[in-house]
Amino acid sequence: MSNLIESLNWRYAAKRMNGQRVPEEKVHTILEAARLAPTANGIQPFSIVAIKRPTLLEQIKPIANNQPQVTEASHLLVFATWDRVTPERLDRVHDQIARERDLSPEALQATVERLKARFAGMSPEAQFQWAVRQTYIAFGVAIAAAAEERVDATPMEGFRNAELDTFLGLPEKGLRSMCLLAMGYRDVTTDRLVHLKKVRRSKDELVIELNNL
Amino acid sequence: MSNLIESLNWRYAAKRMNGQRVPEEKVHTILEAARLAPTANGIQPFSIVAIKRPTLLEQIKPIANNQPQVTEASHLLVFATWDRVTPERLDRVHDQIARERDLSPEALQATVERLKARFAGMSPEAQFQWAVRQTYIAFGVAIAAAAEERVDATPMEGFRNAELDTFLGLPEKGLRSMCLLAMGYRDVTTDRLVHLKKVRRSKDELVIELNNL
Repeated sequence: MSNLIESLNWRYAAKRMNGQRVPEEKVHTILEAARLAPTANGIQPFSIVAIKRPTLLEQIKPIANNQPQVTEASHLLVFATWDRVTPERLDRVHDQIARERDLSPEALQATVERLKARFAGMSPEAQFQWAVRQTYIAFGVAIAAAAEERVDATPMEGFRNAELDTFLGLPEKGLRSMCLLAMGYRDVTTDRLVHLKKVRRSKDELVIELNNL
Repeated sequence: MSNLIESLNWRYAAKRMNGQRVPEEKVHTILEAARLAPTANGIQPFSIVAIKRPTLLEQIKPIANNQPQVTEASHLLVFATWDRVTPERLDRVHDQIARERDLSPEALQATVERLKARFAGMSPEAQFQWAVRQTYIAFGVAIAAAAEERVDATPMEGFRNAELDTFLGLPEKGLRSMCLLAMGYRDVTTDRLVHLKKVRRSKDELVIELNNL
């Protein structure tokens, strides 16, 4: 069996963790996986807020409906999406691409103009929803990376987004929190989910093999 | 270095592929990874259409702006999201959970009612956007799995969604195509992207380490 399939079968969304700390090199690997995740046009329209200070986790817990894994985890990642895709942000992305690929800024001008026109034709809400989708690609890759590292990582959408944004100072950065990844180690004695069978739709249910049309 | 980081560094979005077929067991592994990906409440609000027939790929190519990888790939996965989250779909998910975990249907009744109420309070568009986010988690996990298998997998959003939906008969199934994964092998002689440096925002740019507030 592939390592990743084995890892994905190992993982589950732990609701209780035992407080053991995730080593910093594993956190780094998980963040690195999210950083390397592909996004449309390489724009990476998000940031990841990494939090490990126990007093901060304590303050976030009530914003996340008092879910115990927030403070029983050692690290919390907040995936925060660009509130909109501005020309300035696109310029910044392409300045970096030009720099790292040793291109003249003009070499990418047509691409940048095309992208600016595309996003200018979208409402701020549509820009944001597009950016959210890219964020979730990285979220999926980070979840896979955590499983490979045998770090329990609980994906969470159940929190009051606007309140967390304010607490973290995200609006000033043009960011909106979308999803959390609480990272730590499952508490096998208190987490009633530990022994539950993983349920997924069968391949026949999920996959439509289309060979005739 | 972790295997996954190595794999993510290996991968890129190939624009030209060489027509070599991806072995079915690797396709199966990639689909299995997507199937095992977590989604909120385990709802998995999407299907994956798997297409390998060359004549179908030929017909899809113009819908995807004639991008050459559509027909130079051996398999195309279409990630198609539930158009809305209906009570019937939620019942179906929870019937399976009850069955596989050997619970009475009543055991999950409170959960199901809570979920039904939550989605009933959301517009169809908001239900769909929620479902899209879950789809993209699986999309990210599938991309990671393909990289682990050393299969080139090109994520694509550049296609005419409604036209592809009609072609694939997705509206009758209550599905909307969101993103594609063209799977095959990079053509190192024709793909000008092969030798380009991978550009990603630096960790310092992407990650906000929040230890004081």
